[in-house]
Amino acid sequence: MMNTLATTTNPPPQPADYAAVRQRSVELAAPLSAEDACAQSMPDASPAKWHLAHTTWFFETFVLEPHELAFAPFHAEFRVLFNSYYNGVGAKHPRAQRGLLTRPSLAEVLAYRANVDERMQRLLARHAGNAKLLALVELGLHHEQQHQELLVTDIKHLLSCNPLFPAYHTRQPADTTAGSGPAQPLTWHRSDGGVVEIGHAGNSGVFAFDNELPRHRVYLQPHALASRLVSNGEYAAFIEDGGYRNPAHWLAEGWDWRTAQGLEQPIYWHRAGQGGGDDAWHEFTLAGLVPLASALPAVHLSYYEADAYARWAGARLPTEAEWECAAARQPLQGHFVDGPDALLHPGVAEGGGMAQMFGDAWQWTQSSYAPYPGFRTAEGAVGEYNGKFMVNQYVLRGGSCATPAGHVRATYRNFFPATARWQFSGVRLARDV
Amino acid sequence: MMNTLATTTNPPPQPADYAAVRQRSVELAAPLSAEDACAQSMPDASPAKWHLAHTTWFFETFVLEPHELAFAPFHAEFRVLFNSYYNGVGAKHPRAQRGLLTRPSLAEVLAYRANVDERMQRLLARHAGNAKLLALVELGLHHEQQHQELLVTDIKHLLSCNPLFPAYHTRQPADTTAGSGPAQPLTWHRSDGGVVEIGHAGNSGVFAFDNELPRHRVYLQPHALASRLVSNGEYAAFIEDGGYRNPAHWLAEGWDWRTAQGLEQPIYWHRAGQGGGDDAWHEFTLAGLVPLASALPAVHLSYYEADAYARWAGARLPTEAEWECAAARQPLQGHFVDGPDALLHPGVAEGGGMAQMFGDAWQWTQSSYAPYPGFRTAEGAVGEYNGKFMVNQYVLRGGSCATPAGHVRATYRNFFPATARWQFSGVRLARDV
Amino acid sequence: MMNTLATTTNPPPQPADYAAVRQRSVELAAPLSAEDACAQSMPDASPAKWHLAHTTWFFETFVLEPHELAFAPFHAEFRVLFNSYYNGVGAKHPRAQRGLLTRPSLAEVLAYRANVDERMQRLLARHAGNAKLLALVELGLHHEQQHQELLVTDIKHLLSCNPLFPAYHTRQPADTTAGSGPAQPLTWHRSDGGVVEIGHAGNSGVFAFDNELPRHRVYLQPHALASRLVSNGEYAAFIEDGGYRNPAHWLAEGWDWRTAQGLEQPIYWHRAGQGGGDDAWHEFTLAGLVPLASALPAVHLSYYEADAYARWAGARLPTEAEWECAAARQPLQGHFVDGPDALLHPGVAEGGGMAQMFGDAWQWTQSSYAPYPGFRTAEGAVGEYNGKFMVNQYVLRGGSCATPAGHVRATYRNFFPATARWQFSGVRLARDV
Amino acid sequence: MMNTLATTTNPPPQPADYAAVRQRSVELAAPLSAEDACAQSMPDASPAKWHLAHTTWFFETFVLEPHELAFAPFHAEFRVLFNSYYNGVGAKHPRAQRGLLTRPSLAEVLAYRANVDERMQRLLARHAGNAKLLALVELGLHHEQQHQELLVTDIKHLLSCNPLFPAYHTRQPADTTAGSGPAQPLTWHRSDGGVVEIGHAGNSGVFAFDNELPRHRVYLQPHALASRLVSNGEYAAFIEDGGYRNPAHWLAEGWDWRTAQGLEQPIYWHRAGQGGGDDAWHEFTLAGLVPLASALPAVHLSYYEADAYARWAGARLPTEAEWECAAARQPLQGHFVDGPDALLHPGVAEGGGMAQMFGDAWQWTQSSYAPYPGFRTAEGAVGEYNGKFMVNQYVLRGGSCATPAGHVRATYRNFFPATARWQFSGVRLARDV
Repeated sequence: MMNTLATTTNPPPQPADYAAVRQRSVELAAPLSAEDACAQSMPDASPAKWHLAHTTWFFETFVLEPHELAFAPFHAEFRVLFNSYYNGVGAKHPRAQRGLLTRPSLAEVLAYRANVDERMQRLLARHAGNAKLLALVELGLHHEQQHQELLVTDIKHLLSCNPLFPAYHTRQPADTTAGSGPAQPLTWHRSDGGVVEIGHAGNSGVFAFDNELPRHRVYLQPHALASRLVSNGEYAAFIEDGGYRNPAHWLAEGWDWRTAQGLEQPIYWHRAGQGGGDDAWHEFTLAGLVPLASALPAVHLSYYEADAYARWAGARLPTEAEWECAAARQPLQGHFVDGPDALLHPGVAEGGGMAQMFGDAWQWTQSSYAPYPGFRTAEGAVGEYNGKFMVNQYVLRGGSCATPAGHVRATYRNFFPATARWQFSGVRLARDV
Repeated sequence: MMNTLATTTNPPPQPADYAAVRQRSVELAAPLSAEDACAQSMPDASPAKWHLAHTTWFFETFVLEPHELAFAPFHAEFRVLFNSYYNGVGAKHPRAQRGLLTRPSLAEVLAYRANVDERMQRLLARHAGNAKLLALVELGLHHEQQHQELLVTDIKHLLSCNPLFPAYHTRQPADTTAGSGPAQPLTWHRSDGGVVEIGHAGNSGVFAFDNELPRHRVYLQPHALASRLVSNGEYAAFIEDGGYRNPAHWLAEGWDWRTAQGLEQPIYWHRAGQGGGDDAWHEFTLAGLVPLASALPAVHLSYYEADAYARWAGARLPTEAEWECAAARQPLQGHFVDGPDALLHPGVAEGGGMAQMFGDAWQWTQSSYAPYPGFRTAEGAVGEYNGKFMVNQYVLRGGSCATPAGHVRATYRNFFPATARWQFSGVRLARDV
Repeated sequence: MMNTLATTTNPPPQPADYAAVRQRSVELAAPLSAEDACAQSMPDASPAKWHLAHTTWFFETFVLEPHELAFAPFHAEFRVLFNSYYNGVGAKHPRAQRGLLTRPSLAEVLAYRANVDERMQRLLARHAGNAKLLALVELGLHHEQQHQELLVTDIKHLLSCNPLFPAYHTRQPADTTAGSGPAQPLTWHRSDGGVVEIGHAGNSGVFAFDNELPRHRVYLQPHALASRLVSNGEYAAFIEDGGYRNPAHWLAEGWDWRTAQGLEQPIYWHRAGQGGGDDAWHEFTLAGLVPLASALPAVHLSYYEADAYARWAGARLPTEAEWECAAARQPLQGHFVDGPDALLHPGVAEGGGMAQMFGDAWQWTQSSYAPYPGFRTAEGAVGEYNGKFMVNQYVLRGGSCATPAGHVRATYRNFFPATARWQFSGVRLARDV
Repeated sequence: MMNTLATTTNPPPQPADYAAVRQRSVELAAPLSAEDACAQSMPDASPAKWHLAHTTWFFETFVLEPHELAFAPFHAEFRVLFNSYYNGVGAKHPRAQRGLLTRPSLAEVLAYRANVDERMQRLLARHAGNAKLLALVELGLHHEQQHQELLVTDIKHLLSCNPLFPAYHTRQPADTTAGSGPAQPLTWHRSDGGVVEIGHAGNSGVFAFDNELPRHRVYLQPHALASRLVSNGEYAAFIEDGGYRNPAHWLAEGWDWRTAQGLEQPIYWHRAGQGGGDDAWHEFTLAGLVPLASALPAVHLSYYEADAYARWAGARLPTEAEWECAAARQPLQGHFVDGPDALLHPGVAEGGGMAQMFGDAWQWTQSSYAPYPGFRTAEGAVGEYNGKFMVNQYVLRGGSCATPAGHVRATYRNFFPATARWQFSGVRLARDV
């Protein structure tokens, strides 16, 4: 029976690993002005500055505080300001008001980071063999990587609210200028089902969050999965066919949501270019507003939109077990967020076999986010990490173009409410056979 | 591959069955004044008069309209007024405004029922061997029984909103005057798990809704189920222990819900008797406000409350597959709503073995309401019956004291959002072994 | 300096006056079924049954309780159930939940009325010379008349929410079948202004509410008032001219309100007859849906609509002082609610001079509802009658077709928020000269 | 009959006046970081950067566009981004989303200002004798001064939302360290009333907004006004006496507002110092959180709070006419926002006579914001400046410590909804005599 927060890698993270992950957050925020880094576009999203501070708070609270000799907080109030949702730690600044924290400034938050990093390096030097401490450090690094992804998607949402459609960087998504060719043909990959194992094996030398544990058996029916993600061109055909105006395609709750908000297309799709009379589909990207590329995956879909599309297409969303069994046989390759040339946008499907399993778009599954059989949460505040969110959310798999390389794996379970649209979330179809 | 709305009984329903079910709805509404039958206490609940009319509309729309010679509606506007959620049929009166329909009067709705019943009897006489028509009739009868249960729970909610705590009937719940003895000891019944089958077998001569189909394999882990439902006395101990004030027991979303609404106890619990200084727990029942009986099951719990209690008790909610496997071995007995002496309240657990599986309280499972592998909806408006609600709801099993005898079975899947409190919903604990 | 609730008539009300006013309320509710009398269509409106009970509660609480020997309440809980807004009396049933009070039944409320009336007649017989008590009785009778008007307008709103457009009675508004002739020509009546007196003179032998006191001087500018109310035909021209689509006519807050609610016409106007393809304007009345009569006054306008119309017409709303000075010279005649043939709808303007000053439609003034100089509220709960509402409401003058004859006068100040549409509220134009 | 937007000064504003007012806005924003200048704490408040841009937009749109040769906008999108509420100009960026405009940056907005200022100086040089143009320029300068005040109050609100209670500057309010002495005794100044004139005389060589026009007669009753504003010490006594827990003091709507929001004190009052156990009243100021000084005026009161205090104190709020008649006899002196040593907080009442009439706190009047008799709005978009807000707001008089010297006068009419608390709004009592 598991009773731990996460499973650790072997060997454990080294001081240089800590430095590299921490540095990456700062790099991702580098293109942002202090203003960009401070604003909050909706309660679900956080300012970049807050991400930089909260990830630092995590190390200060969960690693330095219990282990540092003569611990003193960098700033007493930061304990409250940068607590996200840990009731066990105490009071929290209201989530929807993170954008009002113009102080501390971005410069002060970077100083906070530098201070904690220096103390962490001293601590790591002194505790090189302390497995329990290193497990917390590793958790903190994976936590930081999760916030790196959120930093990217939250900035994208913020910039999308600005009628100037400002760009985060100048690297255009692939294929947007190369014409409007369709994606490669979609094929189906069959599985016979039967009793399979999913979940993380634990003690395997590969890190996992607690929600991936324990490995356990499930029974799968025969089914088939699509060879690639649904493309922009295919999704545009759904719209063209009146997809957003026919309740027969939609879950009842999804239709009510769509109707109440008057939605007619994905969140970042626009009928016209900036200031122009062009009524062709455009897509807001981190490089600004660009013509929609048919071959690229449709992203930023809610669960409701994903499900409606699948129903319209005569298919369904996969279960998380179906997805995981297929993914376990695929290499961990994709268009991850790292590297100086990352586009921060999914790429086109290429090659034969199962394409785009990792590092293009999170893939909605029809599986409600629930504890695996035998799941246990850790003691204390850090046990609030995952378990308390296991209701009314749906599992997404595979990582996206905003996910750091090395962060994701076949057993990784991401989760969002059915309404969430601001993540790089797409659709891989499944069907019964 | 299934592609049907439901599975039918063999032999099919007879005209007398139709008459009996239809008559039962009128009997359930008999204690109500026209005023009682017209009011709507919240958008989730409907007026009794609306239930009487809508169930009639179902037969008129789905059976008479396609089959009756020279069909003419009883009243053209009723097509809209009494359509619940079938987009395929057309416009619908807004759900939250059902209580404003003071016209047609209760007497006119009863006349509508009599008219449709007479036409239905003529139709049944003419189509005695028409299996497809009889399948729709049977669906309509089970639909009517579902609304009989809602009629009871909706009236209970309405009366609970009245500070006079008026009674629906005068039959007191069992044990409320017999002192405050606890429930019989709770024991655990173990299952070894493995590959099992759940779901309805189809073509078995027993009716099933489409959401119970198809029968399929699942893999269960070893586990144990409690021998009875959580009792009022046990739930009161949870409250006494600060259960409603400690976020550690709650799902994050449940805690936010509890906090926003300032909830401190189940919906029908009150600290004091009507107008008195007595601060012992009392419970609003269909017989009015009565002292809380410790031995009776705790009911009217939301999923959040059920889950929080289970966590506090060191247990968890069962999955629907775990529940169904246990239930399949139990007799279909319980304190159902039928019969002249029905208390419309759950009874005490008695005897050895698994008590209270059926006909006391719906039992929350941790299973999100989702399609079974291979699930298909029927063509047309009647296909909207179940499938479009398969998101953000949780499965409840077992039927309650407001469920008609013969309506429920081991494979039956009820479902409500995690916030729902006005059904007779309780908790059977489960745990890993 | 006044310090009283109201000014009384001379001679004071007699037992027969009490009986007549009380009987009138019952007559107004007579066409309603128990269902009609129980439902509440919006928080601003109350069920007819509640009006019948609350007016009785007023006499029981403010007259019987302090004066009756061995007072015992008819029902202890009614003190809370039927308290409208008197904090000084204690707890109140939530306003928005009045429609959930299916118990007490309409029959029980009528029994409550009979009981209180009998006790009141005994009390009146014993206290024939008690001026203070009779002043409270008179206040209660005028209070009852106010609720008679609300009973009519609240029922109209309730029935309007029913797609069947049911009728309260069968007496058609004047002129709706007589063709679509326009109203008589509108002329302007000039006043030179200067120092004038408004407000009730007190001790004049004519009843007044406290908010009409004291009589005081104001300075009027030269101005002119229209000879009649704005007609349906004129208001339809405003709509035709794009009045609901051009923000230039509207107060900013009114435009936001209109836009948020998507309003395109007055609340009871419909483009088509019931179930028909006719797209001519129809109006819902207490006799059901009828073709809009051009000559009749436009009613059920909000302050925002009234003000927008006036601006579009190159005029403005009158101040309450301008209105009162003109009204003081007119006879107290109109289409009041009393009498067996009352249409419960305004009539056409007839004759020369200032038409429709009283008893057709309440006339919005541009005057915010505020205390007159020297205004004082009475001590105790009854002092909450008027004063505490003197913010963010606008004064209406003149009484309507739902006002009892004898209830209104030139100094009478009615008041509603700028959004209110369910009263018989219309427009008399004014302009500077 | 007036038909103009405003009345102009004689001589008209000179290029140096333009430069001075424009420069002052930049100076007020100088203590702010780019982050501080970008955030928006509530829909009613705007970011400092937005104020800097919108005031520039005003000159560009209303002066440069119609008068500049070969006009080209600085940035085409700014026309929408920085339009506040002028429907006549076209589309507007949603008010509640001004804080999401991280682009243009603060530096770019300052460049926008410099560009427009340079073009304005060229235009002013060319049009030195163009009275109509100079009238628009003068309007723009007074408009800019209004936004200077809002810039200060909006920043105060933003900083108050930060648990760090950051300071805008380091100049402490007067008297906060000097102990807790009370304000000087309050005396009453009587007026006999009668016919008086209020409003701006027009053509007097003194600027006025259109809403101050025309000068007209009103009749005043005898009354008395308090010699100074209500002090913090007096307001604390109201709280101590249960003022926030007794509905008898409150307007009904005010009580509902207070209750819904759970308010127990003025918006910037806190029971304890930052992070301390001290439970004495403290007040958030632009210099941070400081001990409450009894002698200083109570500020940041809503109309509801002001009215409740007055009722509790046995007095009332003045009418705007009463206030104006008294103010017309007082010198235009006060603690205005200008000057290097301005505290941005009201000062103590000093000297005999009527103290604190100008430049300490806006003083709520009981007068609803309404057009003066004969009021006319200007043609075109600039006519939307004042008139369309004349509903459901209350007039405040006198200017505050955030008002620029020279901006305010005895006839000046400010206006806010009854709920507004973030302005420097206080109370001067009045009473009937």
